[in-house]
Amino acid sequence: MHLSELTHPNQLHGLSTYQLQQIARQIREKHLETVAATGGHLGPGLGVVELTIALYYTMDLDHDKVVWDVGHQAYPHKLLTGRYDRFHTLRQKDGIAGYLKRCESKFDHFGAGHASTSISAALGMALARDRQNEKFKVAAVIGDGALTGGMALEAINHAGHLPKTNLLVVLNDNEMSISPNVGAIPRYLNKLRLSPPVQFLTDNLEEQFKHLPFVGETLTPDLNRIKEGMKRLAVPKVGAVFEELGFTYMGPIDGHNLEELIATFQQAHKTPGPVLVHVATTKGKGYEVAEQDQVGYHAQNPFNLATGKAIPSSKPKPPSYSKVFGETLTQIAANNPKVIGITAAMATGTGLDILQKRLPDQYIDVGIAEQHAVTLAAGLACEGMRPVATIYSTFLQRAFDQIVHDVCIQNLPVFFCLDRAGIVGADGPTHQGMYDIAYLRCIPNMVLMAPKDEAELQRMIVTGINQTTHPIAMRFPRGNGYGVPLMEEGWEPLEIGKGEILRTGDDVLLVAYGSMVYPSMQTAEILHEHGIEATVINARFAKPLDTELILPLAVKIGRVVTLEEGCLPGGFGSAVAEALLDAGIAVPLTRIGIPDILVDHATPEQSKVSLGLTPAQMAERILQKYFSQQPATAIV
Amino acid sequence: MHLSELTHPNQLHGLSTYQLQQIARQIREKHLETVAATGGHLGPGLGVVELTIALYYTMDLDHDKVVWDVGHQAYPHKLLTGRYDRFHTLRQKDGIAGYLKRCESKFDHFGAGHASTSISAALGMALARDRQNEKFKVAAVIGDGALTGGMALEAINHAGHLPKTNLLVVLNDNEMSISPNVGAIPRYLNKLRLSPPVQFLTDNLEEQFKHLPFVGETLTPDLNRIKEGMKRLAVPKVGAVFEELGFTYMGPIDGHNLEELIATFQQAHKTPGPVLVHVATTKGKGYEVAEQDQVGYHAQNPFNLATGKAIPSSKPKPPSYSKVFGETLTQIAANNPKVIGITAAMATGTGLDILQKRLPDQYIDVGIAEQHAVTLAAGLACEGMRPVATIYSTFLQRAFDQIVHDVCIQNLPVFFCLDRAGIVGADGPTHQGMYDIAYLRCIPNMVLMAPKDEAELQRMIVTGINQTTHPIAMRFPRGNGYGVPLMEEGWEPLEIGKGEILRTGDDVLLVAYGSMVYPSMQTAEILHEHGIEATVINARFAKPLDTELILPLAVKIGRVVTLEEGCLPGGFGSAVAEALLDAGIAVPLTRIGIPDILVDHATPEQSKVSLGLTPAQMAERILQKYFSQQPATAIV
Repeated sequence: MHLSELTHPNQLHGLSTYQLQQIARQIREKHLETVAATGGHLGPGLGVVELTIALYYTMDLDHDKVVWDVGHQAYPHKLLTGRYDRFHTLRQKDGIAGYLKRCESKFDHFGAGHASTSISAALGMALARDRQNEKFKVAAVIGDGALTGGMALEAINHAGHLPKTNLLVVLNDNEMSISPNVGAIPRYLNKLRLSPPVQFLTDNLEEQFKHLPFVGETLTPDLNRIKEGMKRLAVPKVGAVFEELGFTYMGPIDGHNLEELIATFQQAHKTPGPVLVHVATTKGKGYEVAEQDQVGYHAQNPFNLATGKAIPSSKPKPPSYSKVFGETLTQIAANNPKVIGITAAMATGTGLDILQKRLPDQYIDVGIAEQHAVTLAAGLACEGMRPVATIYSTFLQRAFDQIVHDVCIQNLPVFFCLDRAGIVGADGPTHQGMYDIAYLRCIPNMVLMAPKDEAELQRMIVTGINQTTHPIAMRFPRGNGYGVPLMEEGWEPLEIGKGEILRTGDDVLLVAYGSMVYPSMQTAEILHEHGIEATVINARFAKPLDTELILPLAVKIGRVVTLEEGCLPGGFGSAVAEALLDAGIAVPLTRIGIPDILVDHATPEQSKVSLGLTPAQMAERILQKYFSQQPATAIV
Repeated sequence: MHLSELTHPNQLHGLSTYQLQQIARQIREKHLETVAATGGHLGPGLGVVELTIALYYTMDLDHDKVVWDVGHQAYPHKLLTGRYDRFHTLRQKDGIAGYLKRCESKFDHFGAGHASTSISAALGMALARDRQNEKFKVAAVIGDGALTGGMALEAINHAGHLPKTNLLVVLNDNEMSISPNVGAIPRYLNKLRLSPPVQFLTDNLEEQFKHLPFVGETLTPDLNRIKEGMKRLAVPKVGAVFEELGFTYMGPIDGHNLEELIATFQQAHKTPGPVLVHVATTKGKGYEVAEQDQVGYHAQNPFNLATGKAIPSSKPKPPSYSKVFGETLTQIAANNPKVIGITAAMATGTGLDILQKRLPDQYIDVGIAEQHAVTLAAGLACEGMRPVATIYSTFLQRAFDQIVHDVCIQNLPVFFCLDRAGIVGADGPTHQGMYDIAYLRCIPNMVLMAPKDEAELQRMIVTGINQTTHPIAMRFPRGNGYGVPLMEEGWEPLEIGKGEILRTGDDVLLVAYGSMVYPSMQTAEILHEHGIEATVINARFAKPLDTELILPLAVKIGRVVTLEEGCLPGGFGSAVAEALLDAGIAVPLTRIGIPDILVDHATPEQSKVSLGLTPAQMAERILQKYFSQQPATAIV
């Protein structure tokens, strides 16, 4: 059977080990070929090919449920559940999503894009099953990196306390999150991986089997499975921590040995209560380049399959915001030993890897633990350090309470740097950085800013480091800057709460925030071609808003447009609306931004077209609203 | 020395055990007397009297740092750090706060009101210390309940990985959070508490000491300390889980034995790296009534010290929102086995204890683990259950990302019930339920509602249970309802997104949400006395907003006021502002609510006066804004 003929995971059930191995090989080929062409997550999926096949070999996915943590490890799952034919559309608009989605397949039992959620969701399903007297299996597959996220540990604490609730947790231990793991739990897992009993007993067992007259030199598959099963039973002491927490621990097992995996899963399914199967996998397995550079090949842009090298872009690009951020912060940190960059397992993504290399003592990676990262930063700030908590907009959601409770209520000068704020593209709805303006704007003491380009990013970094009277958050977009000239030192901080006028005109006032400033200028240019003259303000700060600048111009010009790359409810435009109405200024306001919907995966450009955020679309909307025949304020 | 003479914790240093015991007795007396008079947290503080004294005996609080988790266990700390004279003002306006506050005392090294933050903050301080080459001790004191919160486990994972960073974690194990604890970790701790080695070795050691000729029957204090120290060393295997996670584990020790505590802390300070001292305490220690009923005496209204009975209120009060909630939900659940009430260690506070007693199979307490609670609810919803996640507004902040990522993005019908939404009174800024409208309103798919009184609360519970197309959140205030008639069954669900008109008038439109509806009616009455006639809308839903009802009235009446018990940035009034401007309606809007500031502890009535939220103040403001000589829309 070829992978392409496999449209339902239950078709795996009758296959021989050899056939399963063929499927594994075909999954790897398709996976590699697709990601090389489209970009996407590479290492995580390659590492769980056998794990997925073996798990599905032992389950009935029409009834049983599997919850994949994060979901970027679930490409093999997608290939085994009827999506082979469409797999080449991976992470493309209207194509297969890069993560699991309940609306994409009935086999995607729970969606995810963030880490550490799977055990909670799976436990919820298991409790629902038992309360409805149904019978099906529930499994969560979680990586060792995600296991250190607090909510996964909360879920283990709860599940371990429910000996009558059957739940399988498969720990996919590749010794990595995106970066190498941080913390005592990964170190403990590593100790388990290296612990002698498994190997010792296996060897011993193999020896004994060899002396059985009816087995001899070659073990039958069945006996092989028995052997694997016995190996599990033989090492009850290895996973003492999990055992103490109420789980039956099995492992560690070789995550690329199908027979060992199948035997263990079969036994786990028979074991009552919560069971943890510890599977040792290799990230990027089967693709040597990826095995060698596990950080680099976690996720990839399109690349040449033979060399593993990225396909060079047709034209040179300006540096990314992340890179400018990392380099500038490192430069500042070199002159200010109080600066400490903090990441939650995202060193390369955020550009903090530059700080890590140059000034390792001023760099902290806490692992996938955003909540801890923020309160740790609060503790550092108490002692006069300048903590720079560098976290993607979407992942900072995890630390909302810590921002309120530990930072803002105590008015501690933590500097939040929100990478990937706005439309993120192929990662889709779970990763859109579209809520941060709204969820941070409601917190007292917080200062919010966003740069118009990478040069202003540099100035805002200095601004954030220099001001020590308030918590302050800077958001900046995914992707490349505009190629404007950068300074290597001597950046001047900005005055808190002050915007700037970039263009003047009497017909309409465009108030733009962050990544929407340049598009606003282009919009103004299009309006100019239609005989409409716009004043364009780069707001720089969403909080405090520069009402001294904005309000008189709003009164004078009489038509206001706000432009932001964030959700409209409660966002930047909402702040301008509040300011206008609080001041009793009754002028029409058009708020342009991301409406109150989820934004699916696509290229950022495609998403912006869908959302009406291109300069041409925005100019058209402004013309229609304010300069068409119809009176703009008609109502009732 | 009497406790009242103790103005600096270092004054403890020279005292004898007997003197320390006297101080302990005086702390208990003052603590009990004060809380009996003012109300406040009782059990937690009484349990840590000796722990606090012993810890401070071994530390120099001018330089060393102590971070108290939650802070409600820190009344003894307050009495030892110069606040004896003002202690009778506990939890009263302008008096001593019920939690720690950095602005209240230089000895309050980190504030808290929520659980599980202390290890992160303390580790931040310890890392700052080491990076600045300073020398001081850092300790976190965390309860066993708080230890199961995910962020505490994230912090342990990080700290356990830093063998060169000295950090003391004192585990105050009273076998309780507010309710009895949930989960595998508390069960593990309980196993440690009951483990034989400590007692066995102590007895043995004592015997041996007795046979030493120069000691004989009575041990000197010094030798007693040596004995205690040796006891710690002798049981390295007890805390295997913590040891595996990189901590040196000491304990469990008797939390009410000063000598044992002092000896252990002294030894812990000498031990490099992260150390966990496991202290077994009794919640409510020294006050028999509180020891017997640890849930009931966690926190108290004023009570009679002799009997422990609450001082009856001068007049009978209507039932609390929480009680009506618990009873109504239980009634509905009795007829609908799919309804599952979920609490995060707040059964009594939320009224879910009623469900727990009547229908234990439809009740889940996950412990202090709000993140897990929400994603567990998502998992239950996937399988067709009707999960009701009942969490205080302030604590739900902890699960913001789970609400976005696991519930709203997947559009799962989880029903969130936010108790204590709005002004909470004596608990102060860490507990104000003022952000939820803003932080929930920005999430796609979410429905938001708030009842005007306890009868509408009943109807909204049915509404939330019945609708299964969206996530839905209901907020309701702390305290008592209005005494309106309640139904025992047969509640009619409300139409989603529809408000109601309660009063009509042509001069001003009051659009009120939830707990501000009745005050709006009173405001309208005051306006009427001034010859101003108001239309009052009970909005019921903040999302979707009933624009069909509100907008035409706004146009017709021309002056709009929104009223909410929540933060103004991004809140309910902001939603109305957005709707008006989006529709091109240029009418003046006054948003009344909690401005962009922290709200300190006081009675709710006092806070409302401070914030201008009484009907008289609101009427005055509306008269000034819309009906004074000055034109309301003057600007520039």
